[in-house]
Amino acid sequence: MQNEKTNAERVEPKLEAIKNAEIVSVGTELLLGELVDTNTAWLSSRLADLGVSLYRHVTVGDNKERLVTAFKEAAFRADFVLTTGGLGPTSDDITNESLGLATGREMVEYPEARRHIEEMFASMGREPTSSNYKQALFPEGSELIPNPVGTAMGTLLERDGTLFVTLPGVPMEMERMFDETLEPLIRERTEGTIVSRTLHFVGIGESALAEKVQDFLDASDPTVAPLATEGKVRLRITARAATRREAEEKIEPVAEEIFFRLEEYYFGEDDETLESAVGRLLTEKGETLALAESCTGGLLAKLLTDRAGSSAYFMEGLVTYSNDAKERLLGVPHELLAKHGAVSEPVARAMAEGVRENAGTGYGLSVTGVAGPDGGTEEKPVGLIFVGLSDEEGTDVKRLDLSAFRRSREIIRERSANRAFDFLRRRILHKNEN
Amino acid sequence: MQNEKTNAERVEPKLEAIKNAEIVSVGTELLLGELVDTNTAWLSSRLADLGVSLYRHVTVGDNKERLVTAFKEAAFRADFVLTTGGLGPTSDDITNESLGLATGREMVEYPEARRHIEEMFASMGREPTSSNYKQALFPEGSELIPNPVGTAMGTLLERDGTLFVTLPGVPMEMERMFDETLEPLIRERTEGTIVSRTLHFVGIGESALAEKVQDFLDASDPTVAPLATEGKVRLRITARAATRREAEEKIEPVAEEIFFRLEEYYFGEDDETLESAVGRLLTEKGETLALAESCTGGLLAKLLTDRAGSSAYFMEGLVTYSNDAKERLLGVPHELLAKHGAVSEPVARAMAEGVRENAGTGYGLSVTGVAGPDGGTEEKPVGLIFVGLSDEEGTDVKRLDLSAFRRSREIIRERSANRAFDFLRRRILHKNEN
Repeated sequence: MQNEKTNAERVEPKLEAIKNAEIVSVGTELLLGELVDTNTAWLSSRLADLGVSLYRHVTVGDNKERLVTAFKEAAFRADFVLTTGGLGPTSDDITNESLGLATGREMVEYPEARRHIEEMFASMGREPTSSNYKQALFPEGSELIPNPVGTAMGTLLERDGTLFVTLPGVPMEMERMFDETLEPLIRERTEGTIVSRTLHFVGIGESALAEKVQDFLDASDPTVAPLATEGKVRLRITARAATRREAEEKIEPVAEEIFFRLEEYYFGEDDETLESAVGRLLTEKGETLALAESCTGGLLAKLLTDRAGSSAYFMEGLVTYSNDAKERLLGVPHELLAKHGAVSEPVARAMAEGVRENAGTGYGLSVTGVAGPDGGTEEKPVGLIFVGLSDEEGTDVKRLDLSAFRRSREIIRERSANRAFDFLRRRILHKNEN
Repeated sequence: MQNEKTNAERVEPKLEAIKNAEIVSVGTELLLGELVDTNTAWLSSRLADLGVSLYRHVTVGDNKERLVTAFKEAAFRADFVLTTGGLGPTSDDITNESLGLATGREMVEYPEARRHIEEMFASMGREPTSSNYKQALFPEGSELIPNPVGTAMGTLLERDGTLFVTLPGVPMEMERMFDETLEPLIRERTEGTIVSRTLHFVGIGESALAEKVQDFLDASDPTVAPLATEGKVRLRITARAATRREAEEKIEPVAEEIFFRLEEYYFGEDDETLESAVGRLLTEKGETLALAESCTGGLLAKLLTDRAGSSAYFMEGLVTYSNDAKERLLGVPHELLAKHGAVSEPVARAMAEGVRENAGTGYGLSVTGVAGPDGGTEEKPVGLIFVGLSDEEGTDVKRLDLSAFRRSREIIRERSANRAFDFLRRRILHKNEN
């Protein structure tokens, strides 16, 4: 606690109002495409929530000269420059040193950082090596950002009206340092706020959806923007205002009208996913679900259990890859498999009924198909999928033709999962109406 | 065919040698952090394979003025500027128009693009609306890039020694257009090549690993760079040379020596994952596997079946979320669950043994634990995980303490999966030695 308080007191740059930010991510592995930059997306999302405008992301490699240039250019455009990556102990970690060069500050050792490194190593029962102490060097005049979960502390350095921040590239460390030190600092220095609400739709294409709300897409306050991903479409409504409440009041009537026009396809808002929407509906109805998966290989179960609390409605999932497993675990008759093959309407039906009966759940949902890229035949091409859904009223099977995506096993599996969850979602909703 | 041939003939820009590229990705959703930019990583990886140097990624929003600036700045640094995103039919799709402004070219309608749009809609049994025809407008003098799977064609436009390319943001469309049109064009215009080999390790931390190969990390040809992710570390060895073979010959002795020093932790190369390494070992030994998952909820099964061919060794996976499912499907004794609880050494053992016995596989692997963020107790905190592994020689259970990651259900689940797969991997390898 002592330590935290000391740091909280010290991290007090002068810059009074943050207006617009720029993110510089650092790492040759990003330029080589060996790593997808999820950090920038995370930081961007948090900055948007905090009302900080962001007009540009830049990525540069582990190269001092180019990083110095990127720092200088960013400072020309933005008053708040955040970097992620390049704070490690190895020789290619050069972010703090480059910041020193860009701002004309010497690198100096910070005793509090040295102590922090020693304490982190001690807690793991290990000794730091000399290279680890590189992480105690910062440009002179920096305030340090505590890192509760790693050795790399970050820096806050103000120069000529621009506030520079360096954060590590390890997502968990970066996220905690942002949450614990930067967020409070930004909150004090932003005027107004940007609020976004995202509405999610399934079962309608992007352009068909866009046509139904074209008037909103053409408007500017709030703005409405569509985005399509694997069979789903979302609409983001964004407003800027002095307060969160004011922004929300601008968004509300727009969201209402869009919902009214597209209710049939709507499944949730903001960080709701199709599977969490299904989970919410099951919870609301006090219903339970069991899964029988073949070609999706556990993807549906994985998605349902990504969120905590799924044990309230999700009882079990059987990944029956072999025919033997389909017979033994789901009671699919041997003759059915022999006659129609595992990828067939009758087998999808038997899988859904079998898993529901054995598990004693309200719903049984099954997926069987050819995810590819191999294993397709003329009769049963890659992309042919059957989804079975069983409840106390009976069993329905949907036949999906995803052969247009035959080049991607991943897309076929994702789309199959989305279609299966939407099938179940509509069944639950429909039952409610009767 | 007629059409393809015409396009292949037409896509012939004058620029003779591509030296360095820059990627500009376009989309306000990226700046708001609503979408992770996987396209840039994909393009970067392909450019690296083709020997094109890439020094910078830039992201800008759907804003004409800022996109024009980004085009001009990129052209100052690079002779090959690729964009992804902003080619859709809606009003916020402004990439081609901005390219026209940046290069001083008028927008004109291309009849071949108009025909393409009409054909794509006809094949879906639909009619284009007037907004769809926006996708037939390109800067005058552009060569068009055919899009076999969507309406948005791309453009190739050369101006003052810089070749500009626009590609759509839908990953599958972008990827196919790159593969079919850009790759052959780049191959003709690059000298030399960059080759990378990545070695993967598990069971050792990044700095401990770095110390063992510090001499290579300090060297410059080839370069060796470490990268750590969720309990795994990889080393990327990169060399540039006139030919692929020459680059590979530079890499080979370095890879050999690193392997020699770190063999114990090594599990594969390049796009090998821990789960695909396990799959490869099982295939080599003619062995089979069944899974019993609780807290990982299907994640292990999903990972194993991400790749085609897993049906050769993966027979079934039981996601036994409820205690009832653990008893009924895995034969875990009721008394065991009552006495020790589902998260315990004896239950992990019974799960692994039960699934192996029922499925008749060589190996049974189980995971039970508290993934959080809720549900932890003092005795069984979030992050306490048991992994059971059973084969004909007996059953072992590992107790993992992942409580340091208690803030992230996702990290706990991922690390549990990695540790479980590594447990199995070592068992298979060790058995081989006896």
